[in-house]
Amino acid sequence: VAVYTEVTDEELGAFLATYDIGTVLSFKGIAEGVENTNYFLHTTSGFYILTLYEKRVREEDLPFFLALMQHLAGRGLKCPLPVDNRQGDPLGRVAGRPAVIITFLEGIAVRRPTAQHCGALGKALARLHIAGEDFAMTRRNALSLDGWPPLFAQADGQADSVGAGLGERTRKELDFLAKVWPAGLPTGIIHADLFPDNVFFIGPEVSGLIDFYFACTDAYAYDLAICLNAWCFEPDGSFNLTKGRAMIGGYQSVRRLARDEVEALPVLCRGSALRFMLTRLVDWLNVPPGALVKPKDPLEYDRKLAFHRHVRHASEYGLEP
Amino acid sequence: VAVYTEVTDEELGAFLATYDIGTVLSFKGIAEGVENTNYFLHTTSGFYILTLYEKRVREEDLPFFLALMQHLAGRGLKCPLPVDNRQGDPLGRVAGRPAVIITFLEGIAVRRPTAQHCGALGKALARLHIAGEDFAMTRRNALSLDGWPPLFAQADGQADSVGAGLGERTRKELDFLAKVWPAGLPTGIIHADLFPDNVFFIGPEVSGLIDFYFACTDAYAYDLAICLNAWCFEPDGSFNLTKGRAMIGGYQSVRRLARDEVEALPVLCRGSALRFMLTRLVDWLNVPPGALVKPKDPLEYDRKLAFHRHVRHASEYGLEP
Repeated sequence: VAVYTEVTDEELGAFLATYDIGTVLSFKGIAEGVENTNYFLHTTSGFYILTLYEKRVREEDLPFFLALMQHLAGRGLKCPLPVDNRQGDPLGRVAGRPAVIITFLEGIAVRRPTAQHCGALGKALARLHIAGEDFAMTRRNALSLDGWPPLFAQADGQADSVGAGLGERTRKELDFLAKVWPAGLPTGIIHADLFPDNVFFIGPEVSGLIDFYFACTDAYAYDLAICLNAWCFEPDGSFNLTKGRAMIGGYQSVRRLARDEVEALPVLCRGSALRFMLTRLVDWLNVPPGALVKPKDPLEYDRKLAFHRHVRHASEYGLEP
Repeated sequence: VAVYTEVTDEELGAFLATYDIGTVLSFKGIAEGVENTNYFLHTTSGFYILTLYEKRVREEDLPFFLALMQHLAGRGLKCPLPVDNRQGDPLGRVAGRPAVIITFLEGIAVRRPTAQHCGALGKALARLHIAGEDFAMTRRNALSLDGWPPLFAQADGQADSVGAGLGERTRKELDFLAKVWPAGLPTGIIHADLFPDNVFFIGPEVSGLIDFYFACTDAYAYDLAICLNAWCFEPDGSFNLTKGRAMIGGYQSVRRLARDEVEALPVLCRGSALRFMLTRLVDWLNVPPGALVKPKDPLEYDRKLAFHRHVRHASEYGLEP
């Protein structure tokens, strides 16, 4: 809906000529993906998505994301597989944009996840962490501790116009997290944006993880904290402990959390809530005139942050001894 | 891009429970269709499109359109087949809108049709006319002779702001067509909007016709006139006689034009050019503020009309003796 590049049948034909995936049977723009343009593509060899990267994804990061998806798919993780062209490169250009063809994943995103979905997600997250262990490339998390103050600087002065006292609360939180942010936790590839939009289910089972364009190298437990924030709160702002228990239990059934990860979880939840509050706040204050896409509410994450400030131990998120 | 209704996984599940087409494997909004909301739907029984009808389609017309598509598909025409629910009705409701599930058609729309495409389209158009011969329902063409003056009344006074002299030219054309508009031509079901957007090809062959929401009962040759306007002019405004010859030849290879149809063709081309000029003019003058969709240029059809005014015989469109 937001960014959208039209691809003509001629441009498509020229692009597909660089691949060895047969001829086109169907090609339709998909109304998903605010950041990129996506097309459903059916050829004589199967079903694919053609993605055109718009401005928000940095082109120099693409080789990392594409190699990561190829690595994870090769380890058996259900995620999109970027298809190599005849030159052995998954990255090409269509309509002046960097473009890839990835395999189509069945499944649908769930709007209101149940505890069962949260349990399945926990397992899938741990499998992702394990599948990424031997991936050779790294990418800094630009949206972690160092990245928050410059983000907040873009919104400072206007924060109180969005929520009463938001500026002062956020400054205090930044100071607090700078002091206590954990170091030395088990680290590797994390998804860093595994919201319900990015997880496909068929029935109760996870059928695929998508949208790896925030993936980076960071603490595994931080990824779990992001998921607790994104999946286990109810629309009224309350934390659903049954969902938290299912998610953490699912995660630990595949990858056991170390003691320092358990201890860090409340602070990691605060940090990840702050991260989404800040990016939403900047987006909220920079809605272009005439935009049709309603920005997401930063205060949702300010309220989650308030919840986390009162958490003393990971058991309050549902961790069982 | 324009109108778009979100369907949650819960609404989809409830709707599919009224059908006997299996469980969902994939569900994605399609960025096509300015008038309706469309979703790609894959279930354990096959591939479908879920269409939600937005305001521009009149709900009382839907039974005609759906019965027509079922009739044509039953006659072997490649067009979407509305699927009956368990009650034997193709029409249901999703998210407060009338909604149908139709079978998915392979193929892609061609942006710049060649003469070969025009020939294939001519044959497909004639097959559509024949397949509709024994369809029992009728629907008046609201966008024919009687419908043009009220359309123009919505734009009159502002027409000259769009093109110099457009108001006067259009008034004269309306007067002329009111006097010479042919009656008694062979009549039946026509598509009435068979632009290249609405025709799918696989290679050089027509794989399907879509978007029957202007279909009505009118002169067959008027449908051919619409297609000559929509397919056989070049971007620079010139008429491509090779394409016209291919289209009319393709049509006649399936259904021979009668003498009165041949004689009426120049006037029918004027009428159909006027019809699209008028609807585009009204849309052009009523673009909502902040709209992202660029309206189509009414002057394109004013120029086509000027071409048709100098045509004396259907041979100038490529009709061969």
